[in-house]
Amino acid sequence: MIRLVLSLSLAVSLIAGPAFAQQPGITGFLGDNARVQAEREAQFDALLNGENLRGWMQHMTTRPHNVGSPKAKENAEYIAGLFRSWGYETEIEVFHVLFPTPKFRELRVLKPIPFTASLTEKYVSEDPAILAALEAEALPPFNAYSIDGDVSGELVYVNYGLPADYEVLERHGIDMKGKIAIARYGQSWRGIKPKVAAEKGAVGCIIFNDPGEDGFFQGDAYPAGAYKHDTGVQRGSVVDMPTRPGDPLTPNEGATKTKRRFDPKKLDTVTAIPVLPISYADALPIFRAMSGPVAPKEWRGAMPVTYRLGGEGSAVVKLKLEFDWKLVPTYNVIAKMTGSTYPDQWIVRANHHDAWVIGARDPMSGLMTVLEQARAFGEMAKTGWRPKRTLVFGAWDGEEPGLLGSTEWVEEHAKQLGEKAVAYVNTDGTSRGFLFLGGSHSLETMAGEAVGAVTDPLTGVSLSERARSYQLVSGTPEQKAAAKEDSTMRIGALGSGSDYTAFIDHLGIASFNLGFGGEGEGGEYHTCFDTFDHYTRFVDPDFSYGVALTKVAGRLTLRLADADVLPFEFTRAAKTYRRYADELVKLADTMRDDTETLNKMIAENRYTLAADPKEKYVPPTPKDPVPHLNFAPILNALDALDAVAQRYGDAVKTLQSSGNALSPERAAALDKILYQSERSLIGEDGLPRRPWFRHLVYAPGYYTGYGVKTFPGVREGIEERAWAETGAQIATLAEALTRYAGDVDEAAGIVAGK
Amino acid sequence: MIRLVLSLSLAVSLIAGPAFAQQPGITGFLGDNARVQAEREAQFDALLNGENLRGWMQHMTTRPHNVGSPKAKENAEYIAGLFRSWGYETEIEVFHVLFPTPKFRELRVLKPIPFTASLTEKYVSEDPAILAALEAEALPPFNAYSIDGDVSGELVYVNYGLPADYEVLERHGIDMKGKIAIARYGQSWRGIKPKVAAEKGAVGCIIFNDPGEDGFFQGDAYPAGAYKHDTGVQRGSVVDMPTRPGDPLTPNEGATKTKRRFDPKKLDTVTAIPVLPISYADALPIFRAMSGPVAPKEWRGAMPVTYRLGGEGSAVVKLKLEFDWKLVPTYNVIAKMTGSTYPDQWIVRANHHDAWVIGARDPMSGLMTVLEQARAFGEMAKTGWRPKRTLVFGAWDGEEPGLLGSTEWVEEHAKQLGEKAVAYVNTDGTSRGFLFLGGSHSLETMAGEAVGAVTDPLTGVSLSERARSYQLVSGTPEQKAAAKEDSTMRIGALGSGSDYTAFIDHLGIASFNLGFGGEGEGGEYHTCFDTFDHYTRFVDPDFSYGVALTKVAGRLTLRLADADVLPFEFTRAAKTYRRYADELVKLADTMRDDTETLNKMIAENRYTLAADPKEKYVPPTPKDPVPHLNFAPILNALDALDAVAQRYGDAVKTLQSSGNALSPERAAALDKILYQSERSLIGEDGLPRRPWFRHLVYAPGYYTGYGVKTFPGVREGIEERAWAETGAQIATLAEALTRYAGDVDEAAGIVAGK
Repeated sequence: MIRLVLSLSLAVSLIAGPAFAQQPGITGFLGDNARVQAEREAQFDALLNGENLRGWMQHMTTRPHNVGSPKAKENAEYIAGLFRSWGYETEIEVFHVLFPTPKFRELRVLKPIPFTASLTEKYVSEDPAILAALEAEALPPFNAYSIDGDVSGELVYVNYGLPADYEVLERHGIDMKGKIAIARYGQSWRGIKPKVAAEKGAVGCIIFNDPGEDGFFQGDAYPAGAYKHDTGVQRGSVVDMPTRPGDPLTPNEGATKTKRRFDPKKLDTVTAIPVLPISYADALPIFRAMSGPVAPKEWRGAMPVTYRLGGEGSAVVKLKLEFDWKLVPTYNVIAKMTGSTYPDQWIVRANHHDAWVIGARDPMSGLMTVLEQARAFGEMAKTGWRPKRTLVFGAWDGEEPGLLGSTEWVEEHAKQLGEKAVAYVNTDGTSRGFLFLGGSHSLETMAGEAVGAVTDPLTGVSLSERARSYQLVSGTPEQKAAAKEDSTMRIGALGSGSDYTAFIDHLGIASFNLGFGGEGEGGEYHTCFDTFDHYTRFVDPDFSYGVALTKVAGRLTLRLADADVLPFEFTRAAKTYRRYADELVKLADTMRDDTETLNKMIAENRYTLAADPKEKYVPPTPKDPVPHLNFAPILNALDALDAVAQRYGDAVKTLQSSGNALSPERAAALDKILYQSERSLIGEDGLPRRPWFRHLVYAPGYYTGYGVKTFPGVREGIEERAWAETGAQIATLAEALTRYAGDVDEAAGIVAGK
Repeated sequence: MIRLVLSLSLAVSLIAGPAFAQQPGITGFLGDNARVQAEREAQFDALLNGENLRGWMQHMTTRPHNVGSPKAKENAEYIAGLFRSWGYETEIEVFHVLFPTPKFRELRVLKPIPFTASLTEKYVSEDPAILAALEAEALPPFNAYSIDGDVSGELVYVNYGLPADYEVLERHGIDMKGKIAIARYGQSWRGIKPKVAAEKGAVGCIIFNDPGEDGFFQGDAYPAGAYKHDTGVQRGSVVDMPTRPGDPLTPNEGATKTKRRFDPKKLDTVTAIPVLPISYADALPIFRAMSGPVAPKEWRGAMPVTYRLGGEGSAVVKLKLEFDWKLVPTYNVIAKMTGSTYPDQWIVRANHHDAWVIGARDPMSGLMTVLEQARAFGEMAKTGWRPKRTLVFGAWDGEEPGLLGSTEWVEEHAKQLGEKAVAYVNTDGTSRGFLFLGGSHSLETMAGEAVGAVTDPLTGVSLSERARSYQLVSGTPEQKAAAKEDSTMRIGALGSGSDYTAFIDHLGIASFNLGFGGEGEGGEYHTCFDTFDHYTRFVDPDFSYGVALTKVAGRLTLRLADADVLPFEFTRAAKTYRRYADELVKLADTMRDDTETLNKMIAENRYTLAADPKEKYVPPTPKDPVPHLNFAPILNALDALDAVAQRYGDAVKTLQSSGNALSPERAAALDKILYQSERSLIGEDGLPRRPWFRHLVYAPGYYTGYGVKTFPGVREGIEERAWAETGAQIATLAEALTRYAGDVDEAAGIVAGK
């Protein structure tokens, strides 16, 4: 579901250095086992073939395969058949989830210039069968879990629809009450836009693709080029995912057939106001009809029109939406290969198979690497290899509307997963260019090693060197500095946007999400133009990056599955968490200074004096001062974590140089404490206002949607100026970090034989 | 000529604080004379009337009045008549200058899609007489001092056409040889664009108005709004002004009728290649025809097209230009009021009267303040007042093509001016909003006082408080920091772009240039749409900012004319020059670090690894390392200046508190050393490669055109990596600063009676 781009805001920093490539050892493998493992990985690499990815992708993208469609079921059965043919114990696990689809969509400008939006994409394909399938089966552009509604009102252009954007509107004296917000896609996850618009008093919300970020401004439109067709519309969910993903009717529980469901009248995660996405072709006449103050420069896109804010007296639109609020089945494919030594330690490797329309890049490009990896492991199993730990492959359904399949599966099997799941590895839609990888920082060292061992298909250097070059040349100033000072790889923190969410955020299972990006960009995301043709012409024509991604994800899985000691390592996590803590201290200090400056400037009337007296201007109101916060509990817990992380590392080194192995009982006990350590970062009560999200180190932002907020309870407490809550969250986080340090301490004791 | 905007790049920082408003003293006035002066200024203010500005502007903008036109002569005679009617000794001084006008202009796309550019503005006026005058007399869009030519070649889009832009093209492997450059207006003075294009091998140059910076992107186009009409074209000079303004045929000498002229075949300041400006309406089909790599994001404007770089295989255009290379008369109006006490000390106050077309804002809005000030002084003279020093009012002709009138006048009267000119005060086209002021820093204190004493018409606070509010709220980070730490006014350094250039840069006469900006912006600059209608609807409808500017410029003039001791003050200049020196040290250090990083990154192949392997990419070549430079001579000279500046300030304070006056002889000697001190900053040999520019502290940049380079010899030496030259320029600058410190020391001695 998530769109993988290397952007300034992407919380990913991939900078593995040559150190790893030269390093003979592989974390978690003792003695000669590292060499054996390296040979096994070479065997794995040799089995991979891009033509498999191509063939499966083409086969599964001939018709729309959204959740609930016939083709989604067919694809699930096809995938299950493949897994079975490769020797996996395979089942299709079905959940029954709420999935509204459009019954009626209307958007009209009533005045000053009447206009009716087409709300239709122009299908493009050289294959008449695909054209026919699109005509017959494609879901039209809509936002899933918009509420039904029939509203009209004056338009207000709200830029990206972030809270800060409404402050700008307030400076212009524009009130949102009774208005219809028109927001451009970008900068936040789309569901934030109607959420904030409704909070501000809007009665409806329109989201459009601005060609400045998604269209001709970037390059030729499809089918001539990769970029967004004038009629292209990004579909997508607007369910309140930062509060809770999964089936809205069955919070915290698997949506099995017999489950007693939450009252559909009390749905708490659908939007408060109707919302509809439109194309640039439909947006242009609407902007032409708008009046009001000229939008700030940063708000203007690439449509050939003067962008205006609208407001009182501006164009009036009518938005009418009705949906069919029905239950649909989700077909999750689950395939297992039981571990020889530790059958009750599971490594889960998956991606979703449902799409918004034809879905070649999203999700098939990522799913293909799951399949090719599973196929190769199946081949390896035929030569006598068995993983030490159990492998669980998954192909989720219903990811697009709200991570439905994976979330219901995780909720249904929460107890079992809580006990057994070592890690989760996810690869959603991918492209070519530079590998990005987000995940749990206790696995940063092993991830760096795995990435450093794979070669970039087009340049011949390691993937980590290529990514580091990107950081050094094109990174943000922070990324450049980090890449300069540190030649080893840093992984990003996970927000949300794909199926790892329930694993890491709800259960505390260490997770990875990875893919390629930065090249092969286009405008097909969540449109009818995300096709096999588009992917093979513009994205990864020879699937060489698909194969490279398989190599990385395959290594992550293999090393987790076969390690003598699970490859967790804590000094890098400790360093990373220290950076997060430093950020929080700085955030509070900066806010304190900024608040003082703001209040002084208001008192001195500076804002009004700097504004054009001939235009309406409302100065900001003073903010409450930022108190000094006691961060000591967090800092003390991090000091403790530093010490035990070092102790664990030293103990492992001593073990390795001793040439001894751990006894089977000690090894099993160590593994368990290692992979369970991530659970210690879970808070029982979850985050404020969203108890489903329980990880205290990583969460999607309440007002970013996909974008991560690290130490989210504390950070969002500060950002929202909820000082008492921040104090409580500091205590909660410090307790979790102390628990975590305790786990590491226990692990060190086991290794040291104490 | 210059367009006055408050932009990030504007080297002006106006932050006068309330300190001045409360300060009873006026620098330069001893004892009770400060009170007398304040009363005189109140009398002056009371005489001013915006209706005069309106009437004169309307009268002088009924027909095109470019240099050489009948209306320019009529206006000169009208202005002379006004001065005479107010009691000034007035003459019209005529020079005969080279002014080429178009005989033939053709721009055609030859392939892939033939298109012929209209090269025509659509005239707009409700007054049929004005429409008829435009039809009959307006100069069509062209760039003055483009060479004749008939060239064709493939187009390359060069962004703003700065040297750094060509580095980007080199990374794409695009060679300029034989190509035609198409550059957008902005970021540099327009003449830089063909200059650099020719240096890189282009055979022609087209400059267009991008609507992203100058058109519908900003607001409604004229006549509905203030912004650029689709057919609007910015005319303007492309003579090599950073090398030498004025008549190209008579360098360093006044272009009197009988002057033996420079060989027209050897013209050294016309362009090397033909160049033509075009409108957005003409540019769009040209961009539609272009192919090649997509332009970098920062290069793209607001035309509804994918911006491409062009190059080999891209669209081919033909550009044919022929000009009538003729001499025309320039009519400079000079009006004098002889000083009662020091007739041989001149305060010069002026602006130009010629325009590109109808020219209401540029130049009339600035010239009107000259006239109204002169009228009021005339009224004051009728009540018995006479200035102590001689006032010289000027209305220059031929500014637009190359500061012709003022430069010829300065060159012709160089000896007299060198002896007598105390200061020059210039007000070119002005708007409303925030006062900006650039000038010589030895007059910064008196300028801050004058600005602080005038009230903003719309908000009622002092102009300095309003400007400081703008800096605090909307300034660059540096401006914000400066405005926070320092409540007194800093003035900007002067580059070029209006008639102060010859005064300050060639002769070393302390100068000011001031006006309002930041509000009332539009797209009329150098087009046929710069009309009385435009000005009075969108810019300064009631001329209240015109009157406010008259008050400021009037105070500057009056205080210089009537001070007991000329209001020069050196501690602020010393501080400012110290900042420039610090910048140079930092510039060299940063360049050294950047060069090291660049060379290391090249050696490690980082640039190639960060580039998309599917696109052509040429990595940069290594640069020579930056040596450590000896800045000590400058720093030592500045230490000396600090000390003597303090000594002079202390001596003046002592004199003031003694209640004594200076003897007439000492006062005259002091004045002379004070106003001659700026001459000490002149270097005999001028700047490298441009001996006409002789000021060693301020100059327009060789590659910015208008934008200032402070300590230009040293700064441009570093920027151009000319290390030996930089060393020599450090010595030259240090000598000048030492001379300057010597003057200040001498002045301190006179005040102290030693």
